[in-house]
Amino acid sequence: MKTKRTLRRPFFVVNPKAYLYGEESLKLAKVADQLADKLDIDILFTVQQVDAAKIKAETKHLFITVQHLDGLTVGRGMGYILPEAVAAAGVSATFLNHAEHPMAVSDLVKAVKRADELGILTIVCADSLTEAKACAALNPDIMVCEPTELIGTGQTSDLAYMEATNAAIRAINPKIKILQAAGISTADDVEKALLSGADGTGGTSGIVCAKEPAKVLTEMLQRVDALKQGGKIK
Amino acid sequence: MKTKRTLRRPFFVVNPKAYLYGEESLKLAKVADQLADKLDIDILFTVQQVDAAKIKAETKHLFITVQHLDGLTVGRGMGYILPEAVAAAGVSATFLNHAEHPMAVSDLVKAVKRADELGILTIVCADSLTEAKACAALNPDIMVCEPTELIGTGQTSDLAYMEATNAAIRAINPKIKILQAAGISTADDVEKALLSGADGTGGTSGIVCAKEPAKVLTEMLQRVDALKQGGKIK
Amino acid sequence: MKTKRTLRRPFFVVNPKAYLYGEESLKLAKVADQLADKLDIDILFTVQQVDAAKIKAETKHLFITVQHLDGLTVGRGMGYILPEAVAAAGVSATFLNHAEHPMAVSDLVKAVKRADELGILTIVCADSLTEAKACAALNPDIMVCEPTELIGTGQTSDLAYMEATNAAIRAINPKIKILQAAGISTADDVEKALLSGADGTGGTSGIVCAKEPAKVLTEMLQRVDALKQGGKIK
Amino acid sequence: MKTKRTLRRPFFVVNPKAYLYGEESLKLAKVADQLADKLDIDILFTVQQVDAAKIKAETKHLFITVQHLDGLTVGRGMGYILPEAVAAAGVSATFLNHAEHPMAVSDLVKAVKRADELGILTIVCADSLTEAKACAALNPDIMVCEPTELIGTGQTSDLAYMEATNAAIRAINPKIKILQAAGISTADDVEKALLSGADGTGGTSGIVCAKEPAKVLTEMLQRVDALKQGGKIK
Repeated sequence: MKTKRTLRRPFFVVNPKAYLYGEESLKLAKVADQLADKLDIDILFTVQQVDAAKIKAETKHLFITVQHLDGLTVGRGMGYILPEAVAAAGVSATFLNHAEHPMAVSDLVKAVKRADELGILTIVCADSLTEAKACAALNPDIMVCEPTELIGTGQTSDLAYMEATNAAIRAINPKIKILQAAGISTADDVEKALLSGADGTGGTSGIVCAKEPAKVLTEMLQRVDALKQGGKIK
Repeated sequence: MKTKRTLRRPFFVVNPKAYLYGEESLKLAKVADQLADKLDIDILFTVQQVDAAKIKAETKHLFITVQHLDGLTVGRGMGYILPEAVAAAGVSATFLNHAEHPMAVSDLVKAVKRADELGILTIVCADSLTEAKACAALNPDIMVCEPTELIGTGQTSDLAYMEATNAAIRAINPKIKILQAAGISTADDVEKALLSGADGTGGTSGIVCAKEPAKVLTEMLQRVDALKQGGKIK
Repeated sequence: MKTKRTLRRPFFVVNPKAYLYGEESLKLAKVADQLADKLDIDILFTVQQVDAAKIKAETKHLFITVQHLDGLTVGRGMGYILPEAVAAAGVSATFLNHAEHPMAVSDLVKAVKRADELGILTIVCADSLTEAKACAALNPDIMVCEPTELIGTGQTSDLAYMEATNAAIRAINPKIKILQAAGISTADDVEKALLSGADGTGGTSGIVCAKEPAKVLTEMLQRVDALKQGGKIK
Repeated sequence: MKTKRTLRRPFFVVNPKAYLYGEESLKLAKVADQLADKLDIDILFTVQQVDAAKIKAETKHLFITVQHLDGLTVGRGMGYILPEAVAAAGVSATFLNHAEHPMAVSDLVKAVKRADELGILTIVCADSLTEAKACAALNPDIMVCEPTELIGTGQTSDLAYMEATNAAIRAINPKIKILQAAGISTADDVEKALLSGADGTGGTSGIVCAKEPAKVLTEMLQRVDALKQGGKIK
């Protein structure tokens, strides 16, 4: 078991999915890297697999994060993402079982195990509280859960919904960090998510599809910093 | 449609699958690169996604080849291999639908289309002559087929088997290049495959699991060269 | 190879998907069966697997059709749909590779092969003309294709779109029967589909979600009959 | 939530997978049914989907069990196994996530939920203790687990291995019934499995590939009865 990089709360996830790659991705990563340095905030930046090594080489502070990896070991396995290769490229974290990339139970179990062995932080996604319970049994480092069960239970505000989700996941396993990252497109959204008690927040289209991604990202992270400085989140 | 790099026959494929990554993969790639230069043979070298850019940067002649990519377009698609990212990293070719990584019909169709648009050579695998016919309809650049239907049809020698396979695939579409790469572990195997009339050959475990991979690879490529010089293959 | 039941054009497909099961499905099947008898039209009726045997037993004329089957052989294969079992239950046809149930290339190849061996008619679905070409290589009995490539090519009417699709598929393999079944909710839709030159048509939600499914189905089939009697389709 | 049929320990599972179908399956089911009656033992008999209704109709005591079902609801979902249809056909139980039919986490969650709603007992399979923990979070009625982690831990006998597995699963959730059914081909194997403390046992190839399946099955169930009568299991 290799040691994983320590992730401090409140952390922030920049997740360009397949919206950015190559130079565009590197450019935004550099902005994020400077903000991570200046504001002393841990930022996970997700990359296309082929971009991981270069973005790692040209940044200093980011947690380079892949959007998926497979649970195979060195050997056969044509076309799969070998965890050893990812780790050797300087990757610190991986998403797993995202709703856009569902995994078989046994594949998820293997992928979490391999990531643990190689010191890669795991961010496991769940679609429901029941799925969250199942995933929590794998002891991921971070969980993402937007349970539809809690929608329409009288908790109409986004904030109350996120609080209920956080509570439900913490009841399963209080050690797992919680990421609330759905529908985050402004600094106000970031504030709401962090005030809900989540350990981290972040965004995809709210950032990368904005006219000025760097500006939006900067505003979001400045808000995280302001919340920290103001003692509103610990 | 971007122009694809021209691939000359007889070509050679070094396919380390998930046996090699990082420094080990780069080391073998450099040996292959020197041989490609010295012997003027087109060599496809398959890499882990995260290793593609670096191996591309540190070699001059290889066709950097990924072992899979997905048919998505820029946008959503968490965790998938975006063809644009792969192309931007300098990748020239991709395997698709390998027996270890079977693809849905619609996914294969999309992946071939996207690779075509981005100038990435496609190497499509089929398990049977019927599957080869279906895959040939997608006009891949290269096909790999080891049809079980032809086993035990009285063609007991490897050579006759390969000839029958080549003929069957060429009858489907004579423009598609044929790769015969099963069970290649010695220079003699390489000779047999090329004399069968295949456009290319190559290996995985026969090379990477050998005591001295560089030595085995060199012997194989020297044999390809000798066959060319001797006029035995055109 | 067992002989398949002969399917005459114009045929009609009642495809309740997972909208109907048990008694409700049987009830509609009986209506379809009487119409098949009275109007002498070949009707394929798709069923839940568990309903196949009973609906077969209680009808006389329908082509009992499953919505999927797997390409396995007798032996292991926990949880898959064994073609032998389906055939023994009196099933005459199967859909394969529906957009809601995409299949791996190799699985589709095996499933078509097994269905052919057991005398089960195959209805293979494709999402694009390229996919249709790949699927046509498997020589299915019937193909369904709604290629997005033809949308917006100046052929604005549904009829022109269907004619273009039919022509494209027939150019691939003229022996394969064509089913046009998208968006069919009225007898007029049925007429349009058949006048496009398709060999068959049919519906799902247009029938089963109608207030009176039996009435809608009757109207549709009476229209098929009228077109036949009027010599408008052969 | 419909009430599930009560399952008494020690129960027995006859799992012909895809080895038997139609008349052959019915024949063995009738033998099992008579033994269930005579010996007052709860027997789960797995069937091909198309055989479920008929075997249910021609037996009285068996828990008719499907080898898989899907988590969809009434509506679209071409080609999937609708839980309502299965329940309406008289099915009492379903296997899920068998190693030969792995399920995505979210699909497994949905399938267990739907089975619970419809009063269908769930038998969930896991390949490792970690996977067993994840699956146990879904509260299945029965779990099957043959964790490779426990192999070679000094517990060389089959019995010790099964005891360790039982203990590990019970530590996760003591309410879930445990099925030990690997490598059961004789009455002695049955005895060993039940003496390990498992709630149930059963077999596949040990029964259906025997020269006289009915004889082997009878011997196995007589042994279960003898163990009960002798007070060796409760």
